[in-house]
Amino acid sequence: MNAIMQNKHIFKDKVVLDVGCGTGILSMFAAKAGAKHVIGVDMSTIIFKAREIVKVNGLEDKITLIQGKMEEIEMPYPKVDIIISEWMGYFLLYESMLDTVLYARDRYLNKDGLIFPDKATIFVAGIEDGDYKEEKIGFWDNVYGFDYTPLKETALSEPLVDTVEMKAVVTDPTPVLTLDLYKVQPSDLAFSCPFDLTARRDDFIHALVAWFDIEFTACHKPIRFSTGPHTKYTHWKQTVFYLKDVLTVQQGEKVECSLHNRPNEKNRRDLDIKIQYRLDTQDPNRQAEGTCLYKMC
Amino acid sequence: MNAIMQNKHIFKDKVVLDVGCGTGILSMFAAKAGAKHVIGVDMSTIIFKAREIVKVNGLEDKITLIQGKMEEIEMPYPKVDIIISEWMGYFLLYESMLDTVLYARDRYLNKDGLIFPDKATIFVAGIEDGDYKEEKIGFWDNVYGFDYTPLKETALSEPLVDTVEMKAVVTDPTPVLTLDLYKVQPSDLAFSCPFDLTARRDDFIHALVAWFDIEFTACHKPIRFSTGPHTKYTHWKQTVFYLKDVLTVQQGEKVECSLHNRPNEKNRRDLDIKIQYRLDTQDPNRQAEGTCLYKMC
Repeated sequence: MNAIMQNKHIFKDKVVLDVGCGTGILSMFAAKAGAKHVIGVDMSTIIFKAREIVKVNGLEDKITLIQGKMEEIEMPYPKVDIIISEWMGYFLLYESMLDTVLYARDRYLNKDGLIFPDKATIFVAGIEDGDYKEEKIGFWDNVYGFDYTPLKETALSEPLVDTVEMKAVVTDPTPVLTLDLYKVQPSDLAFSCPFDLTARRDDFIHALVAWFDIEFTACHKPIRFSTGPHTKYTHWKQTVFYLKDVLTVQQGEKVECSLHNRPNEKNRRDLDIKIQYRLDTQDPNRQAEGTCLYKMC
Repeated sequence: MNAIMQNKHIFKDKVVLDVGCGTGILSMFAAKAGAKHVIGVDMSTIIFKAREIVKVNGLEDKITLIQGKMEEIEMPYPKVDIIISEWMGYFLLYESMLDTVLYARDRYLNKDGLIFPDKATIFVAGIEDGDYKEEKIGFWDNVYGFDYTPLKETALSEPLVDTVEMKAVVTDPTPVLTLDLYKVQPSDLAFSCPFDLTARRDDFIHALVAWFDIEFTACHKPIRFSTGPHTKYTHWKQTVFYLKDVLTVQQGEKVECSLHNRPNEKNRRDLDIKIQYRLDTQDPNRQAEGTCLYKMC
């Protein structure tokens, strides 16, 4: 809302495309900001409600809503000046509409066109999460008297979308992926990134937490927001990846990690994620390394 | 668990069928209770994990787990002595497996066989829910400056699965459906029930709340549990149906209601529900009547 409404000079008289418009809220902001015309596209039948909403708000002359796949619909304009989209999913990429935004960019965006938002960064940090890990993973040791450990592996392999308190964060955060929406290609969404996590204090690390920041760099005054543990709640929460081991870290020590992400081959909307970690310390009793496989589905 | 484990004399040496066995927890209780053999059936791939769990608990000789539809699988026994199943959905019937349990009963249960549980009752009461109704329904009056009232109708037509506090309950509860699992037919799940709700105090009624009770009458000492607002939390919570009107009721007054439920014709797992209400009072300013249509999907 702020990125659009505070930048009327950018939207004035422009043709705007809203990818995955849902109930049409961003399309209506763009129309209010002075766009010449807004095209909203969504596969869902929510678009019929969106049409009613646009009408009761008197914006039906300014906004055209089209139901269908971006790849298949007929666009009323050959090119657009601005693409707006709220495409982000959990862990930024899970069930995201980024592929569709990139298709729309390549097919419909003018050479000097703008994308709102245009930058996204995934961050990772180590967290102390002993109580919850015990509750979530240890639970399976004894379920009404039965050994349910076969489900432990399943529980460990499912990243958990949940809120993490700032005080649980043990290491400095590190970016693992930065997307420039003007340049990124669909193939870039399968990526590998080595990174180090440096402990801020003596503590334990039970899991890694990931979140993302979003930027609108085309704004007069750049606008950004974060979905991290240090800032206010968003529905994206954070994503927690439990490690097999508990790492016992001292202040200043580094955990060498790598994160590999790729869309699942059978279902492109699922993500296969691999995290490798190695705690390199002088203390042989605390050395630890491992590889964990996760599936977001 | 209690219905099975407290009734070993009933389960001893019996052949038991667990319909929709999931991770196999009820099958394992039945095996521990002395069943001769337990057959667990589930469509989901969870059954592969269930097999591992049964094995690590040393019960693989007592429990046979079969993946597939009840209607299509080959059963290792022509008849069973007891059917156990946790088939209940939200509002008892939403996405429930009752159809499958009834199929299993008719096809596989011995003449004198038992069903756990064997009785289910849906209750309805009127509730005061002004604050939350405003938050949930009134929200659409102004969404970041736009008129979103077209979504109000949608919000009103979606029953809300949520917990209701006992103090919100304004009327006596009334049963609207009782199912005897030995006798019920699939066609009975489309039903109409007229009922009266009597106000316990002067208050407002914004919605009706529904919940269900479950009984195991074959137990030595009958076991039952409720999912109502008066008792402890279950994952079924309660189901809230907002009314178009706010009813202003005085202690002792009756609201004449009827509830109609039927599976949706296009998608049998969805429910079409109609609630009619009429507040009959001497006070012409408080008279109200209406019909609300809901869809659980």
